[in-house]
Amino acid sequence: MENCIFCKIINKELPSYEVYSNDYVYAFLDINPVNYGHTLVVPKKHYENLEEIDERNLKELIIAVKKIGKAIKDGLNVNGYNIGINNGSVAGQIVPHLHFHIIPRLEDDGIKLMPQRKYIEDKASKYAEKIRRALE
Amino acid sequence: MENCIFCKIINKELPSYEVYSNDYVYAFLDINPVNYGHTLVVPKKHYENLEEIDERNLKELIIAVKKIGKAIKDGLNVNGYNIGINNGSVAGQIVPHLHFHIIPRLEDDGIKLMPQRKYIEDKASKYAEKIRRALE
Repeated sequence: MENCIFCKIINKELPSYEVYSNDYVYAFLDINPVNYGHTLVVPKKHYENLEEIDERNLKELIIAVKKIGKAIKDGLNVNGYNIGINNGSVAGQIVPHLHFHIIPRLEDDGIKLMPQRKYIEDKASKYAEKIRRALE
Repeated sequence: MENCIFCKIINKELPSYEVYSNDYVYAFLDINPVNYGHTLVVPKKHYENLEEIDERNLKELIIAVKKIGKAIKDGLNVNGYNIGINNGSVAGQIVPHLHFHIIPRLEDDGIKLMPQRKYIEDKASKYAEKIRRALE
């Protein structure tokens, strides 16, 4: 898509540190890494978010994420990684072209996950019900 | 798997707030949510992590994540969500049964993503090369 920075990277109109490429997927380093080796895995076709992508491209995307995750473990000699999608600007999505982050993790790197809390009263059953109804 | 808390939830030996179920996947509320409606999506078969799961089950898992993500948006009236896997204890994985988190996000909920930084010198090209080599 015109004016999409990731489409320009995929089309080599902008430079990137390429990690992996196949017919469906392109992967390259996030230039602002959480830890060194932080990789972005994107569909070559432009989809803004997870709701838009079709099943075929989504399957190819997650298989590439799995493959690259293993390569990050092996190649960078780390024991684990976080993968994630920030879906929508409210969730921190900056570039509106669907992308997975793969973030290698080091012992004592000081990175914190999002804080968790408890449900009050019967809120849990009400929230589960709301989601179940939207799935009907 | 014996003594796996998520296998016990899937088998109804432990209670959960069920959100979705099909032949391959079970989804239920995280009892310690980041935001209310925070959902865990797990393969019914026991896999410890992303490296272990086969392609068929992985595909079913990500398709369920996509479907439930949309239901969270629609059912909870939010504009976005974070999805993620903490893969390995170094990455914050507590239960050793592969699971996706889907975390609904609210405007001004105060949740911060992991801090990002810059590469120094030519480290980016070196890291990309290490990952590419592990993919060969």
